[in-house]
Amino acid sequence: MDLSDYMLGLGRQAKQAARILALSTLSQRNHALMCIAKRIDQQRELILAANAEDLAAAKSEGLDDAMCDRLALNAERIDGMIGNLAQVASLPDPIGATDQIRTMPSGIRVGKMRVPLGVVGIIYESRPNVTIEASSLCIKSGNATILRGGSESIRSNGAIARCIEAGLADAGMPETAVQVVNTTDRAAVGALITLDKFVDVIVPRGGKGLIERITAEARIPVIKHLDGVCHVFVDEGADLSMAKAIAINAKTHRYGTCNTMETLLLDRSLAADALALIGPELRAKGVEVRGCPETCRLLDWAVVATEDDWYAEYLAPILAVKTVSGLDEAIEHINTYGSHHTDAIVTNHHAHAERFMREVDSSSVMVNASTRFADGFEYGLGAEIGISTDKIHARGPVGLEGLTSQKYVVFGTGQVRS
Amino acid sequence: MDLSDYMLGLGRQAKQAARILALSTLSQRNHALMCIAKRIDQQRELILAANAEDLAAAKSEGLDDAMCDRLALNAERIDGMIGNLAQVASLPDPIGATDQIRTMPSGIRVGKMRVPLGVVGIIYESRPNVTIEASSLCIKSGNATILRGGSESIRSNGAIARCIEAGLADAGMPETAVQVVNTTDRAAVGALITLDKFVDVIVPRGGKGLIERITAEARIPVIKHLDGVCHVFVDEGADLSMAKAIAINAKTHRYGTCNTMETLLLDRSLAADALALIGPELRAKGVEVRGCPETCRLLDWAVVATEDDWYAEYLAPILAVKTVSGLDEAIEHINTYGSHHTDAIVTNHHAHAERFMREVDSSSVMVNASTRFADGFEYGLGAEIGISTDKIHARGPVGLEGLTSQKYVVFGTGQVRS
Repeated sequence: MDLSDYMLGLGRQAKQAARILALSTLSQRNHALMCIAKRIDQQRELILAANAEDLAAAKSEGLDDAMCDRLALNAERIDGMIGNLAQVASLPDPIGATDQIRTMPSGIRVGKMRVPLGVVGIIYESRPNVTIEASSLCIKSGNATILRGGSESIRSNGAIARCIEAGLADAGMPETAVQVVNTTDRAAVGALITLDKFVDVIVPRGGKGLIERITAEARIPVIKHLDGVCHVFVDEGADLSMAKAIAINAKTHRYGTCNTMETLLLDRSLAADALALIGPELRAKGVEVRGCPETCRLLDWAVVATEDDWYAEYLAPILAVKTVSGLDEAIEHINTYGSHHTDAIVTNHHAHAERFMREVDSSSVMVNASTRFADGFEYGLGAEIGISTDKIHARGPVGLEGLTSQKYVVFGTGQVRS
Repeated sequence: MDLSDYMLGLGRQAKQAARILALSTLSQRNHALMCIAKRIDQQRELILAANAEDLAAAKSEGLDDAMCDRLALNAERIDGMIGNLAQVASLPDPIGATDQIRTMPSGIRVGKMRVPLGVVGIIYESRPNVTIEASSLCIKSGNATILRGGSESIRSNGAIARCIEAGLADAGMPETAVQVVNTTDRAAVGALITLDKFVDVIVPRGGKGLIERITAEARIPVIKHLDGVCHVFVDEGADLSMAKAIAINAKTHRYGTCNTMETLLLDRSLAADALALIGPELRAKGVEVRGCPETCRLLDWAVVATEDDWYAEYLAPILAVKTVSGLDEAIEHINTYGSHHTDAIVTNHHAHAERFMREVDSSSVMVNASTRFADGFEYGLGAEIGISTDKIHARGPVGLEGLTSQKYVVFGTGQVRS
């Protein structure tokens, strides 16, 4: 079949399903999530068999171990999907509320009603779990979705998609509420991000290359996450044991996450003491330090940082370290080299905390806490579709509310405009 | 000077100014607005002289009367700009509030702080008043702005820009907080909408062609307004005198606005009576009716509508009229042919009103009120940067809040993630 016709068909069906979903009750949507969970549980063997085929193909094509690990499913990961569906079902309804109703001088009453976005296009890479994570959030928020997973996981995603379809049918919901693109043709991505007649928003989840390509070519608004170049600044007079705990957690809790610290900024007045305390633990954990000249003087095993290091998102056991003359230089450095994702200050100065909060232009700004807290679950959103580094619509961790918008509702008694 | 260097320079300066603006107090921003108003008042002659040059050039290039009228300034329109600055200064501060602070299980406290978007790029056509309207909203909301007006108004916009710069300087604010692109080179638009390092959002104000081009080429999120194909549906059993008042107001109050009704849908049960009441007044006002076959039978002077008429945004004394079998067909028609802008029902049925509100997928949905109310001022927003037909970020009339976003602020006492 012609790819463009196929994608148009998906778009048209999604739009129709979206109208039905938008009118469904919370009970119907939650019931659909539980029916999908049941189908997944029943079809474990089929899903694992499809996944085994994906894995065999991936290995024969020479995919590296990290990719294969992301691709692999097992009983525990399937339990995780089922748990995810139940957890999303337990969340409050993100749509339907009408609020801020006020009476205007003309006599009309104006309010805002929280409604689904419509059709959400999701483009992601190897992890087949995302098929369930993304579908569950879209169903819960009353959106139809078109999912485009990585070509290496096409069999796994297909098997999961059949469970989703069956679960939707069990619950009396349209099977086309969730559609998984069933071709590995890379042109499908290009087609999806230009289906502006049918798709309301694109959420890409993957590497920077994928997201940059999508942003450049999309004709549809994109909720995206680019880099996480996160900083911790240890202010003059900070509690050094707190600084150590936060820095070690922010860097070494997980190396590959977007909210991991990539650059540590030290006030010059405490740089020697801080490095004496934090340096050995970083070294013990195998973290390479790339330092400014002063850092390298204080830490003899540090490597000299280049200009590029200040911009780097390592996603690895590497940390850039720089001494600064104080709060002003720290803020300037973060706003210049950072990615406006998550940045923290460790401080005892109230006024410094206030200035850092206000002046650092990032989606999450923290005082005396690890950058690793930048997360939908830690923020109490109940779920996370991604972390946005954009400034419009949703900034920072995006929960169910990010998949909704508000329309104006106006109640009159025959008013006309004069 | 090389255009690309020039635009990069504007972007860089805007970004710097944005950081200063974001930290300014409400008093400083309001004072800047009043200083600009004073400069405009002092420089009336200069502005009018520049505008006279624009008008002379426009006439010699054969611009039509409507365009020339939009371009023309006079004492009253300059009074309007001054009044606009004072009105925006009187509005509450859209930034700075931190709310929803909650304590999470980990002990961190998480809240959201309302902040400016940063740098707003505004692209507009002939009306030089927009230079003030847009600048005032950006300054008030703490955003820097780069304005790209129509080439036919470049001298007027330049004269106004000098008043803005002088007013900003009077108030001790950076003069580069508002920058007007001073070249008529059309490539400047292309450069502005791809300055993704410096510009956070693009707001185009103009015709559909301009907006479609910008949406296709922008590398930056766009808050846009495309069509306004607005409907009024007169439900079975509706009060016909109310239906007449609303239909006449929605169609004839102003023909050229986006919230003007373009299609009237009549329940078949009352079509004859409704047309007998509304038809003569439409005819008296010189409105051409393009009707479905039944409408044409009932109204002998109506022209037969084609399929294209149901999609048309006439912006003229033309109205499409269609009879429908009831609420379902009306909703289906609106969601299929409409532009998701503003649609109204005239009804006495409570359940029909509820269903129309919920099922019509438009940014404004109204019961028993004229579509002409879809407007930032009528909705109590205090000001309007435009009306968005997008679903993300802002939907419907966009006020000062549409020029802001919320960042997460996290307050800890040394918490790390386990």
